[in-house]
Amino acid sequence: MDTLTRRGFVESLGAAAGLSRLPLPEAPDAPLDDTTVRLSGDGNGQSPAAFAALLQRLTAARAVGEDSYLLGGEVEAFERHWAALLGKEAAVFMPSGTLANHLALRALAGTRRRVIVPEMSHIYNDTGDACQTLSGLTLMPLGPQAATFTAADVEAVLTRTAGGRVATGVGAIAIESPIRRLSGQMFDWAEARRITALARERGIGTHLDGARLFIASAYTGITPAEYAAPFDTVYVSLWKYFNCGQGAILAGPKRLLDDMFHTRRMFGGNLAVGWPAAVVARHYMDGFVDRLKAAVRVSEDVYGGLAAHPRLRIARVPQGTNVAHVTLRGIEPKTVASRLLASGIRMPAAAPDGAVTFGVNETWTRLPAAEILRAFERALA
Amino acid sequence: MDTLTRRGFVESLGAAAGLSRLPLPEAPDAPLDDTTVRLSGDGNGQSPAAFAALLQRLTAARAVGEDSYLLGGEVEAFERHWAALLGKEAAVFMPSGTLANHLALRALAGTRRRVIVPEMSHIYNDTGDACQTLSGLTLMPLGPQAATFTAADVEAVLTRTAGGRVATGVGAIAIESPIRRLSGQMFDWAEARRITALARERGIGTHLDGARLFIASAYTGITPAEYAAPFDTVYVSLWKYFNCGQGAILAGPKRLLDDMFHTRRMFGGNLAVGWPAAVVARHYMDGFVDRLKAAVRVSEDVYGGLAAHPRLRIARVPQGTNVAHVTLRGIEPKTVASRLLASGIRMPAAAPDGAVTFGVNETWTRLPAAEILRAFERALA
Amino acid sequence: MDTLTRRGFVESLGAAAGLSRLPLPEAPDAPLDDTTVRLSGDGNGQSPAAFAALLQRLTAARAVGEDSYLLGGEVEAFERHWAALLGKEAAVFMPSGTLANHLALRALAGTRRRVIVPEMSHIYNDTGDACQTLSGLTLMPLGPQAATFTAADVEAVLTRTAGGRVATGVGAIAIESPIRRLSGQMFDWAEARRITALARERGIGTHLDGARLFIASAYTGITPAEYAAPFDTVYVSLWKYFNCGQGAILAGPKRLLDDMFHTRRMFGGNLAVGWPAAVVARHYMDGFVDRLKAAVRVSEDVYGGLAAHPRLRIARVPQGTNVAHVTLRGIEPKTVASRLLASGIRMPAAAPDGAVTFGVNETWTRLPAAEILRAFERALA
Amino acid sequence: MDTLTRRGFVESLGAAAGLSRLPLPEAPDAPLDDTTVRLSGDGNGQSPAAFAALLQRLTAARAVGEDSYLLGGEVEAFERHWAALLGKEAAVFMPSGTLANHLALRALAGTRRRVIVPEMSHIYNDTGDACQTLSGLTLMPLGPQAATFTAADVEAVLTRTAGGRVATGVGAIAIESPIRRLSGQMFDWAEARRITALARERGIGTHLDGARLFIASAYTGITPAEYAAPFDTVYVSLWKYFNCGQGAILAGPKRLLDDMFHTRRMFGGNLAVGWPAAVVARHYMDGFVDRLKAAVRVSEDVYGGLAAHPRLRIARVPQGTNVAHVTLRGIEPKTVASRLLASGIRMPAAAPDGAVTFGVNETWTRLPAAEILRAFERALA
Repeated sequence: MDTLTRRGFVESLGAAAGLSRLPLPEAPDAPLDDTTVRLSGDGNGQSPAAFAALLQRLTAARAVGEDSYLLGGEVEAFERHWAALLGKEAAVFMPSGTLANHLALRALAGTRRRVIVPEMSHIYNDTGDACQTLSGLTLMPLGPQAATFTAADVEAVLTRTAGGRVATGVGAIAIESPIRRLSGQMFDWAEARRITALARERGIGTHLDGARLFIASAYTGITPAEYAAPFDTVYVSLWKYFNCGQGAILAGPKRLLDDMFHTRRMFGGNLAVGWPAAVVARHYMDGFVDRLKAAVRVSEDVYGGLAAHPRLRIARVPQGTNVAHVTLRGIEPKTVASRLLASGIRMPAAAPDGAVTFGVNETWTRLPAAEILRAFERALA
Repeated sequence: MDTLTRRGFVESLGAAAGLSRLPLPEAPDAPLDDTTVRLSGDGNGQSPAAFAALLQRLTAARAVGEDSYLLGGEVEAFERHWAALLGKEAAVFMPSGTLANHLALRALAGTRRRVIVPEMSHIYNDTGDACQTLSGLTLMPLGPQAATFTAADVEAVLTRTAGGRVATGVGAIAIESPIRRLSGQMFDWAEARRITALARERGIGTHLDGARLFIASAYTGITPAEYAAPFDTVYVSLWKYFNCGQGAILAGPKRLLDDMFHTRRMFGGNLAVGWPAAVVARHYMDGFVDRLKAAVRVSEDVYGGLAAHPRLRIARVPQGTNVAHVTLRGIEPKTVASRLLASGIRMPAAAPDGAVTFGVNETWTRLPAAEILRAFERALA
Repeated sequence: MDTLTRRGFVESLGAAAGLSRLPLPEAPDAPLDDTTVRLSGDGNGQSPAAFAALLQRLTAARAVGEDSYLLGGEVEAFERHWAALLGKEAAVFMPSGTLANHLALRALAGTRRRVIVPEMSHIYNDTGDACQTLSGLTLMPLGPQAATFTAADVEAVLTRTAGGRVATGVGAIAIESPIRRLSGQMFDWAEARRITALARERGIGTHLDGARLFIASAYTGITPAEYAAPFDTVYVSLWKYFNCGQGAILAGPKRLLDDMFHTRRMFGGNLAVGWPAAVVARHYMDGFVDRLKAAVRVSEDVYGGLAAHPRLRIARVPQGTNVAHVTLRGIEPKTVASRLLASGIRMPAAAPDGAVTFGVNETWTRLPAAEILRAFERALA
Repeated sequence: MDTLTRRGFVESLGAAAGLSRLPLPEAPDAPLDDTTVRLSGDGNGQSPAAFAALLQRLTAARAVGEDSYLLGGEVEAFERHWAALLGKEAAVFMPSGTLANHLALRALAGTRRRVIVPEMSHIYNDTGDACQTLSGLTLMPLGPQAATFTAADVEAVLTRTAGGRVATGVGAIAIESPIRRLSGQMFDWAEARRITALARERGIGTHLDGARLFIASAYTGITPAEYAAPFDTVYVSLWKYFNCGQGAILAGPKRLLDDMFHTRRMFGGNLAVGWPAAVVARHYMDGFVDRLKAAVRVSEDVYGGLAAHPRLRIARVPQGTNVAHVTLRGIEPKTVASRLLASGIRMPAAAPDGAVTFGVNETWTRLPAAEILRAFERALA
């Protein structure tokens, strides 16, 4: 990294992440008003001004208890709400999903330092090897290039670990679903249950990186609590689609989480207050799955209507969720984007290979499917 | 920690910190309005509603550029502003002072793993041994029970380190000033300059934990940039008296800070956005030292006027800053507090030993000294 | 490991290592005299008494300089001899190969914490994850179940590493050849050179775990120095076939090795003296490759003569070295072993699956091939 | 350490260790025969040839069971012997005292990462911060420049630790006695018992670095087992005065030691065999304390006889053991050494400040005190 500038690195991420085609958040140039349909992203993309106005409204409407270093007040109530929602004994507010995943695995592993992770996972690829460098864990990657690995893969690691010349142990298994680096593809749910059953039998901890868990629920009908049930711990992102700008929730058993505020502080995750994110996330999370289901219906109608269009090819992701890759033929993406914007629809820029990554989010319901289709017809003409 | 509950731990902090008498932030029960004088704390103690209203006003007044994981937008401009203000090449936004201190020492130390710290410092006492546990640094505490250690103390450590049977090296020296655990006492400035000169000569990095640096400036007239000059890196808290709820600034040379966003992310400090704290801190920091100087003048008049009062004993801190310990005689602190509140003055609760910790902050200018004195006369009657 | 006893663990190693069929050293019950042919093992299996008698003879014959914590004296001369022999600037005596491999990777990696290793390597499987746990390295395993991985495999890791959200770097690549867990199979030499060339081009360090390097030389004719040339560092075992009971050599550039005695001591590898192992290893290493070549010729004649025997099946290892797996049919291995011993030939016990692991070592020249064959004929009758 | 050469570092140790005046082992130039009295050192200083001859004799006299990576055979019997001798459940052979101390503290501390150590201890000064760097322990030094710290010092650390903002715990307390850096001064035994009692009460582990424990026993009459009794674990050096060239014993409870062979291997301490050191140490340890007591009597007679000599000043160490500092006046140390050698007495070289460090060891009984005194008279004439 000697010569890598900050900007250069950020740009390089886009290229390197070509596989997943998930672009970085858009540059904060043109704040959208509340009626625009955003064809990409997981959240509603509200501007700083819109965020602040909402926060002002919410704090004026009711007394918000301040927290002290994330303890007490609104944050404590928020954690209790999450624990109940996910069917776990406890929940802890974390400043980032990176920390939530890390501290979950650190706690689950204990003195057994090997942790099985998906080879394509965020934990294995996008955290600077935090678990290895800061917690001395040995991550064992399974499922090359795939969303799913199998219980047999897990068995093989357990057997090889038992045969090493120095005793080591597998302390935890992590699954990421939907998986970001594979455009939101989901881990096979039946296999996940076989793996968690095997882990329970062997006394191995299990963790679900469910950053986008509520998006999966909108597609499969399996509730977040049902997804969380077979796992010891589960992480859900607060800001990706609850639009609160910061934070993550880690839910699980009291024995692991009750003292985790100490570890959170040791890592420097002790934000002086966390109530703003808690207030806004709480606002958006109630009813979210139903609202996203409505958006999914709109998107399916739109994709169906566009399927046969000669200038468009829509590549859906097998076992996928809200991401699709759209290729335009014979027309510049920029031209199309500009025309759509005139109809109140924002299409993201194309990747260097010409593909445009669509993401279904709450804003798709801001216009009826028929109107979105008409806007595309005009834009592609 | 097996049996320690979260609440129990928070409460125990108050007792254990008896030495410093710095109470935890007040419970967020009764939001103050803007005209109350707060006799304790470093900041203005604004309520969530007041914070949100201010944020709404500030984001409505000008376009605020959103950041992506603390890169770009308002946060980048904010970092540049800080670098210039402190006379350093670069500055990095950190989610907490705990992380700012840690990453500074980690970077300064490099492969020389010994780091000299004040025995009473936050780094040594209040971070769960993060530097040792997560970065493998060996902290060498100097200055037992004192705010200041000496260049001779440093020399002694360097000599002993050189004589060890395995080569180790001292990579960094940290100073904390004002120092929290000693009620805001300052490190002797002449000694600090001798130590930094010695360190420079030996190629050892230096770091200033200047969480409350701007408070020191209001008392000594030495500017933050002058304080920062002899050190390689300096940390300043954003929320303690700039009222922005989160964050810290770490300033220093580009060679150390340019890539630190990677390490910040590895530790999980990658907040999805940091612009709200940047916007509010920016609002309060301009002119802060002058405003606090005015408050100091008010407080000196008040302390002077109360000095001879038979029911009050005011213990100032030698080489101190904005903290004083006030003992009441022959009257219940609660009674006094209740009477003062009727005059628009909020006095904090007494510690178990009966002492009340006063802290000078911006709100002391909300009433003239004479009026505060009159309120005390009435309350102590 | 809670319930695993020491003896149980040692025994379990044999079973778990079924893949490689390499048994633990034999129980030290019946010391062999100098004329016995040992059909297994890498070394000559001398008894404690024979070792001590040799050591007495060698130290009586010439003045042996004592070392102080492995510095100076005989050990220093021994290190210089090794550096010259392997064509490297420096060499360091290590108490074990486990430490030699570890410290080499730790030094090569520096601040780039990812290290590519063979999935079947000793480093990855048999060291209790020492590199990960004690040095915070992230081992990236390549070549599932195979002796060789490819330059393309390396490229894929480099690309994925570059695309992570936090900058990390690959600092070193390790190869093990011959590889213990695959019965002495060798890494493809042409591929090894492509990988080391790629690494050099990218500024990545390379390490050869050549514990049994001199055995490879006897089979391929490639000298140890030729094997060592493309790598930055190389480790060779001292005791496996130089019969000195302890130790390992790590050779490489001065910039990495000159100060490594400090790290060796930090890890507790500072034996008070190392001269006994140096004296005995020096005795056996001169002329070793030629002597082993002679033993290989004997063994090839023996294997050739036995190839058609109806009661024997000899499974050679593709790209192998001195290990072969022999299965007996229609006769008890114990019976055969007992009859062979009467002819001065010691055959090891069979694994639970009935296979007997043969290993060619210097003792095979103690009898002519024809005589060994005759002994087998009689034993299998 | 950039510019420090290996030789330079070794030499610098002598200067830096001026406080303790303990010189490095003598250069291995002139092997002593068995009748020479060595006025310095803890052991008998036998030459490599003498060591090898002894080893040959011992292994010829009885069957010595070979160990495999320090498991089984002679080493296992040796460990059992040590456990019984020290009154502990188990004992483990370690390649070095550095590793024995480290693994004891690592095991005792468990998840409570603070460990109290003497400020002048080997652990704190001479191991390259191994505990901190490799095991993430935070060493808390007590007793500046002193052999003894107090139970009150321990209490103060426990109190401050309990008051930190992040929960940490003290997991172990180490004592070193006699202490090398203070010329063999002993920890006050009554205070040591108060500290171990306090530790037991608080559930904190205790470790005794008793490298030279048997020397203390010869001076105090307290047996090694009595010294070991109040501590959970105790380390004794094997080579310093048992003349076996390598190794250390760590004794303690089964729950800590039974699986420690795994950790020993992880650190690279898995010597392929350890039987030579076990055989020789066993030879010398039986009856050692009594033989050293006899040597102490000789030395006391010699020191008494020399006390009034005008050319000699003998500085004994308060609470000391076998070390004394002797200053010569009006005569060159080299002259004296040369004359003594002619009488079969070897005096070590003087330190740069002119002082000669005497050490009482078994060889003092090789001549009667009267004869040693006469030799001094002649040499000082």
